[in-house]
Amino acid sequence: MTQHILQASAELRGQRFIIAGGGIGGAAGALALSLRGADVTLYERAPEFKEVGAGLQIGPHGVRMLEKWGLKDKVFAAGYLPERMQFRDAITTEPILTMDFDEDFQRHYGGRYLVIHRSDLLSILVEAAQEAGATLHNGVQVLGADTHADGVTVHIEHRAEGTREDVEADILVAFDGIHSVFRGEIVRDEPVPSAYVAYRGTSELPTDPDMSGLKDVIGYIGPRCHFIQYPLRHGELLNQVAVFQSPRYLKALTEGTEVPDDWGNNEEFRTAFDHTHEFIQGRLGSMWLDTWWQMSDREPLDNWVVSDRIIVMGDAAHPPLQYLASGAVMAMEDAECLALYASQAAAKGELDWPSVLAEVSGERAPRCARIQITGRFWGELWHVDGVSRLIRNETFRQAGRTSWYRYVDWLWGYDAGRREYLRDPSKGELPEELQEWEYQIHKIIARREGEAAPEELTI
Amino acid sequence: MTQHILQASAELRGQRFIIAGGGIGGAAGALALSLRGADVTLYERAPEFKEVGAGLQIGPHGVRMLEKWGLKDKVFAAGYLPERMQFRDAITTEPILTMDFDEDFQRHYGGRYLVIHRSDLLSILVEAAQEAGATLHNGVQVLGADTHADGVTVHIEHRAEGTREDVEADILVAFDGIHSVFRGEIVRDEPVPSAYVAYRGTSELPTDPDMSGLKDVIGYIGPRCHFIQYPLRHGELLNQVAVFQSPRYLKALTEGTEVPDDWGNNEEFRTAFDHTHEFIQGRLGSMWLDTWWQMSDREPLDNWVVSDRIIVMGDAAHPPLQYLASGAVMAMEDAECLALYASQAAAKGELDWPSVLAEVSGERAPRCARIQITGRFWGELWHVDGVSRLIRNETFRQAGRTSWYRYVDWLWGYDAGRREYLRDPSKGELPEELQEWEYQIHKIIARREGEAAPEELTI
Repeated sequence: MTQHILQASAELRGQRFIIAGGGIGGAAGALALSLRGADVTLYERAPEFKEVGAGLQIGPHGVRMLEKWGLKDKVFAAGYLPERMQFRDAITTEPILTMDFDEDFQRHYGGRYLVIHRSDLLSILVEAAQEAGATLHNGVQVLGADTHADGVTVHIEHRAEGTREDVEADILVAFDGIHSVFRGEIVRDEPVPSAYVAYRGTSELPTDPDMSGLKDVIGYIGPRCHFIQYPLRHGELLNQVAVFQSPRYLKALTEGTEVPDDWGNNEEFRTAFDHTHEFIQGRLGSMWLDTWWQMSDREPLDNWVVSDRIIVMGDAAHPPLQYLASGAVMAMEDAECLALYASQAAAKGELDWPSVLAEVSGERAPRCARIQITGRFWGELWHVDGVSRLIRNETFRQAGRTSWYRYVDWLWGYDAGRREYLRDPSKGELPEELQEWEYQIHKIIARREGEAAPEELTI
Repeated sequence: MTQHILQASAELRGQRFIIAGGGIGGAAGALALSLRGADVTLYERAPEFKEVGAGLQIGPHGVRMLEKWGLKDKVFAAGYLPERMQFRDAITTEPILTMDFDEDFQRHYGGRYLVIHRSDLLSILVEAAQEAGATLHNGVQVLGADTHADGVTVHIEHRAEGTREDVEADILVAFDGIHSVFRGEIVRDEPVPSAYVAYRGTSELPTDPDMSGLKDVIGYIGPRCHFIQYPLRHGELLNQVAVFQSPRYLKALTEGTEVPDDWGNNEEFRTAFDHTHEFIQGRLGSMWLDTWWQMSDREPLDNWVVSDRIIVMGDAAHPPLQYLASGAVMAMEDAECLALYASQAAAKGELDWPSVLAEVSGERAPRCARIQITGRFWGELWHVDGVSRLIRNETFRQAGRTSWYRYVDWLWGYDAGRREYLRDPSKGELPEELQEWEYQIHKIIARREGEAAPEELTI
């Protein structure tokens, strides 16, 4: 695949970008734009580049992009290439679907399936962006920005010093996360908690008597919970994620009482897997107890363009639930799409920023909305009980008997370079069966709040 | 298939049978036993042989038996041979599974799929039993029986005259229905209402503008309801069944209050399909409103033997919910199994009645228990909502993409003559995934009654 590696080019020479946020998306943005010759400055408010969490799954849609950016050897060396992904029933441990990441898979999707420590991926992206010429600052927070005829004035704060400064750029790309400042200029909405909470943990893999042969991503899915295992760092680490529905959160939601801040706490964790197989219960001892992640997403946005010179991307535009393992990949896709469309316009001498931003938003928003909605659906699919669990298991078995590619082609086969949603907007539409589908948790909230929709702002 | 037609034989000559109940099962019993030369007397308490309801589906497991009894031409002439069975989503009308009753199907199951008016099937069986030499009495109720060393003394009542009489027989076969007198001597239990109620109706098919081309069994399945259509009487009649969950029944059950006698009444029927496709709503005008059927089954029985000379069969032994369309067929299987095992034993000069009854019960009880439990599961499968409905639809689609035979081989491929459950009792076991499955309605009842199991009696 060496022929696909992106050679640093110069289409965007002289274009000044500011990127707000130095997570995986921001770093990817700095890299993708720098590789086209842009003048990129990234501001991260934290004192160092750091990712919370542990393992991260990168499907072939993401791996293809990392290859294009020339990072294949580095990420493969830092991460792990699982042989298969296997879903098992969390009550019986019966394998219900095995997805082989074999040569046919690699041919079909043009890339491998990678798992990697979040911090390792971030470090690689940060280093590559710097090598490509981007300037990355820590401890600097982007507070806001004013768009003017020739560009954008970005207000930043040096956090240690407490000093503020205005910086000029042609474009501000807001990769400022789920609590984005700039998203608020498009829509006034709030994160939507899913009632599910994640516990994570890494431990030594080679010395683990039960797990030392693990070469796969294993997902135990069961009523109101699931449990994921896979190796990290070329097999040195075992990554485990235990996710469950918080009874206290759900109770507060249903009864309309105040939601406790610590929903999903250790007390809930202790009994959350009692109905699952004893193997899973026996694994929970190696989870970290001091932190747990209350999982939220937001409603999809139709439009990511804040102004003629500002666009939101990554979690600022489309924070998903984690079920399709595509949050980081979407952010990387956003980055590459912006850099690609801008450099293509520049190469033709037609670099009109409002048009480029509108094109990028028009291509990306339907894609990410579909991932967000399908992720919610996927979460409910994993967590069903009773008769529905038996049907779900049979659906998974049947997918294995035929071809499961049909279910993931839309996700793993996507390439923003084809501009497919721009050319055929209907391609971005959700499958019919998901269009009519209502997220159960959201229904409860909507009912409690008298069906009030999030307020759309005109800017 | 002419070679399979059973030639009347004489193995059971001199054996006196009394059959209690002249429904489809009793009539089939009278026929199957008479065909082996037995001396059969059947008592039906109603003044005439009559079936309530309208259409009846007979899968190939039943059709093979009707052929064996020499009734193929008659039932095919009286009924209808649908080309396909098609399941559709009741909200969208999307076809989700089409089961072709084509030559491959007929080869695979050794028989066709038949739909027939219940009264027509009963008439054919009654007539055939009489032709084979059985004596069938109307207006006579079997009240009870005493087993003795040489046979059984059966207490009957001539209902019109109000006179009672004792009749002697070697064997009493109790086909006396879901409210069987004789089942009570094995177990004290009650019918278990499913909370679902059926409305039925027949109307003229050829003049029906929307339905005149119908050649299939169509089942619209949707949240908390379903709707079935198929032709009857060589296409002259349209048979329709509309089934829904009664909100008033469910409310009483959940709250532990008294269940209203008329649960599922016309008032409930009027709004029960409001959430389904307008096509279905438009069809409900031709349903009969003066009668509705509250659907119940009973818990499976391990043993059908009442005494050395008495056995329960048909709905007396295993009343099912209707979802697998096998109630009548099971009763016919029971009849043929008893006649077959008894005549085989007699042919070898080993006719020991307690052994024969034990063998028949041992072969048949696991089979019918599996149909009862799977029927309950099937009902829940049809009626799921939300995410589960979407999974169910996909499971059905996938079954159509591969082969749906795997799901019905156990049901339609069965032949009691193989004595398969006797030889391998594990064959009667429910599939693992149904063994752990709990019927939702039953859970509510069990919870309310403090988990009390039905009392087993020793006789």
